[in-house]
Amino acid sequence: MITGSAFIGEEERVGGASFQAWDPAAGEPLDPPFRESGATDVEDACAFAAAAAPDFAALPPSQRAAFLEAVGEEILALGDTLILRAMQETALPRARLESERGRTVGQLAYLARVLRDGTLYDATLDSAQPARVPLPRPDLRRHHLAVGPVAVFGASNFPLAFSVAGGDTAAAFAAGCPVVVKGHPAHPGTGELVARAIIKARRRCALQPGVFAYLPGAQAALGAALVADARIQAVGFTGSRTAGVALMKVAAQRAQPIPVFAEMSSVNPVFLFPGAAHRRGEELAKAYVASLALGAGQFCTNPGILIGVGNADFDAFVSFATTALQAVPAQPMLSAGIAGNYARGLAALRARTTVTELGRGAEATAPNRCRAALLAVEADDLLADAGVREEVFGAASVIVRAGTIEDFARIARQLEGQLTATLLYDEDDIPAVARLMPELERRAGRLLGNAWPTGVEVADAMVHGGPYPATSDGRSSSVGALAVERFLRPVCYQNLDARLLPPAVQDANPWRLPRRTDGLWQPAPTTESSP
Amino acid sequence: MITGSAFIGEEERVGGASFQAWDPAAGEPLDPPFRESGATDVEDACAFAAAAAPDFAALPPSQRAAFLEAVGEEILALGDTLILRAMQETALPRARLESERGRTVGQLAYLARVLRDGTLYDATLDSAQPARVPLPRPDLRRHHLAVGPVAVFGASNFPLAFSVAGGDTAAAFAAGCPVVVKGHPAHPGTGELVARAIIKARRRCALQPGVFAYLPGAQAALGAALVADARIQAVGFTGSRTAGVALMKVAAQRAQPIPVFAEMSSVNPVFLFPGAAHRRGEELAKAYVASLALGAGQFCTNPGILIGVGNADFDAFVSFATTALQAVPAQPMLSAGIAGNYARGLAALRARTTVTELGRGAEATAPNRCRAALLAVEADDLLADAGVREEVFGAASVIVRAGTIEDFARIARQLEGQLTATLLYDEDDIPAVARLMPELERRAGRLLGNAWPTGVEVADAMVHGGPYPATSDGRSSSVGALAVERFLRPVCYQNLDARLLPPAVQDANPWRLPRRTDGLWQPAPTTESSP
Repeated sequence: MITGSAFIGEEERVGGASFQAWDPAAGEPLDPPFRESGATDVEDACAFAAAAAPDFAALPPSQRAAFLEAVGEEILALGDTLILRAMQETALPRARLESERGRTVGQLAYLARVLRDGTLYDATLDSAQPARVPLPRPDLRRHHLAVGPVAVFGASNFPLAFSVAGGDTAAAFAAGCPVVVKGHPAHPGTGELVARAIIKARRRCALQPGVFAYLPGAQAALGAALVADARIQAVGFTGSRTAGVALMKVAAQRAQPIPVFAEMSSVNPVFLFPGAAHRRGEELAKAYVASLALGAGQFCTNPGILIGVGNADFDAFVSFATTALQAVPAQPMLSAGIAGNYARGLAALRARTTVTELGRGAEATAPNRCRAALLAVEADDLLADAGVREEVFGAASVIVRAGTIEDFARIARQLEGQLTATLLYDEDDIPAVARLMPELERRAGRLLGNAWPTGVEVADAMVHGGPYPATSDGRSSSVGALAVERFLRPVCYQNLDARLLPPAVQDANPWRLPRRTDGLWQPAPTTESSP
Repeated sequence: MITGSAFIGEEERVGGASFQAWDPAAGEPLDPPFRESGATDVEDACAFAAAAAPDFAALPPSQRAAFLEAVGEEILALGDTLILRAMQETALPRARLESERGRTVGQLAYLARVLRDGTLYDATLDSAQPARVPLPRPDLRRHHLAVGPVAVFGASNFPLAFSVAGGDTAAAFAAGCPVVVKGHPAHPGTGELVARAIIKARRRCALQPGVFAYLPGAQAALGAALVADARIQAVGFTGSRTAGVALMKVAAQRAQPIPVFAEMSSVNPVFLFPGAAHRRGEELAKAYVASLALGAGQFCTNPGILIGVGNADFDAFVSFATTALQAVPAQPMLSAGIAGNYARGLAALRARTTVTELGRGAEATAPNRCRAALLAVEADDLLADAGVREEVFGAASVIVRAGTIEDFARIARQLEGQLTATLLYDEDDIPAVARLMPELERRAGRLLGNAWPTGVEVADAMVHGGPYPATSDGRSSSVGALAVERFLRPVCYQNLDARLLPPAVQDANPWRLPRRTDGLWQPAPTTESSP
């Protein structure tokens, strides 16, 4: 069932050099070998995608919604084969992968609903005013249209939900964009299984072969070639800052620069206010460690920094957190590469004279394990050293001791853009929290109160994004309804014959979209009230 | 009243080296000299802007709307002083400048309405579901917030409507972003007058000094320094492709890359279908020449290429157009630089063996005049030579003779991104137009039927944008309600105490915004139905 091939058009193509999948928990290679896609494969996949783009973009929303749902059904139809392979390739536990599969299928279904709702077309009509002086006003109609083929790079840490059929792919499909996926080499078998599910769904829905292609590969050159291809019109990426910035550079240097939506790096600061530390120190310390250690800390929303005001309550919090952390078992990481990066990142932190190691989790007795770590630094040392503020991907977090609560704003101002910022507060902290809010609103995509950032709800109001380097474009979100807008662009029709207008802006509104007409919002017409 | 200074905070600051304003029609310098802003001025202007940003972003929409309206009032209050100075500096006629002033004030008022309407906050609320299994759903609320200080570069060809208080500035103000304007050196006196009007309005509205700054300058280094300043969060630009691409590079190379919304270059193809050419050749030829010669062709939406099918009707059209063009008087251009570029661009076209000169307008008898030009090329030669498809800014247009109507799609596919594409058709052309539409929808921001692209209505449904290089980001528009979205980013609040939420997402909805709650659109509450 897994062959290691690329999927381009209707062809299952055997690529060039082979590379291995690995079981990170055992440190052993997995069968079969996978074959690296090359320049010709990129070329062909993009040609198919470009050929399929206009028809796919023009499909009624209900048909693309049905395709999204079919993808979800085919993923479920893979059954335990998918879960078992993903467990082998990522060392993630069954419960987590089953839950992630639910999320993946759920977000396909969610975006199908968003699509049927029709708001994303942003259909807007302004009537002609032929009698207006000094000049008549023309008839103007606007909708949002797919940008064209999208390149998607899956994340290592979400082999299902942010990978081959993950959020970026689902959002691009919802927008009407064909997708060319560069498979993640850390879970190539999982990727291939999901690719096969998408192709089954695509055939069931009788869509053109170019709607989806899958290119396995372990070389950075493959991704760069894909982003450089003139037919690709946008890029979705979740991964490291180094890889994301490299793709941004390729995209910016094209003859036609294109947007890259890269979700990259975030330390997700947590601000522990004095009232909360005083009354709930033990409870919060345990919850903090649970959040930072969850899934070996391999979440982009992992709380990498916690800032508190140095006093007796703070010392107690640190002590509770250290005790809790020492009980964290060593957990296998997603890949040898990630485990190596964790070790190096942690070593760089520990090598600093300003950084103290508070405690470590249980020692590792097998390869590629993450041994949790809790570190401490003074606020002034954090402010003086950007290196301490950089993400270490894994179950490590730095506790920052501030002199006074006024340091919170100073620290916030020095932080780079973040996916999240968390506020732990009690009633008496609220004035101080309110003063800090404007600083955090400018630096993060999501602000949480007495909650933990790990866990990203798929919802209309969700923002999974944030100013650079949390993402490449702080005006975007890779989760929720906003994710689709990244792959749409507005097109206006002026004085065009009714027979030439796309359905979204025709007078009869055949797709039953909600629309704004002459400045007034009109909800989607119901079946009953329609002609 | 014009001093040649920079305006930073409450300070009117005399800069460094001086440069002159010019009367292009007379080819003579104008008084007084202007003083070049430098690195310290950029630094100070951005510091003020950053300091003003949070409060300006947090203002109720009604207050920012009042500021936009006040800017319009202060521009009108400049009276004929503004019109006379703009006439001197740009050689544009009084009627055009009065109309442009009306457009400038009108678009400020339009964006004030958009702001009061409240849709741009995209306020979205998802209720908590504490009983949901397996995990409770958190309370999530989202609104759109200003990105921070914006750098604006005005256009030479719209000294009012796309300049100091033009579309980009108005959109940034509407979004809640402080603006630092780099004044255009071709109309520095006009720019200063408008800057003074904005500052008057800013004081009237009791806003912080950092909300607006104006830096005169003639050196590219000033603009680059402004875009490179870490506090600038987005850039609005209208001008040449060379300058726009240079700013995009600066923005991409920053430690924090930022979006540049540059409106740059477009040849605005016009497709003349056979039925229309047959029945309305003379009328269309005259209208085409009127559109291409309007304002010496100094519009970004000027029809630079017209494509028809070579037959007797086409020959007649060409003949009518040539005759009409020969009657076009020489018109003064906006500046010596633009007149020089026009002459060079036209000479490069005429030097090609594949390009025929059909006719020229009346000869120039004074400096910096644009002598209109009509050129012809065969479709295959156009397809083979990208240079013929490049914009020549001014009253020049190339008529392309296609072999068959099937060539229309071949030509469309080779065109770069465009602001507009125009379709001239009659009833019997409609099937052929319909076949071409998908190609044009992918390449242009606005499609027109039997209309002319010069003239950009300020309306909800307008798109003044298009794929690169028409703009740097084809997902944006610099005119209409969409222009504001460029300067906003989403922020999500999860489980935050009601007292910490911004007004846009508070339960009481104090700003009376339309909102989406649990998937349902709710119109803005009226005064009557409110608590």
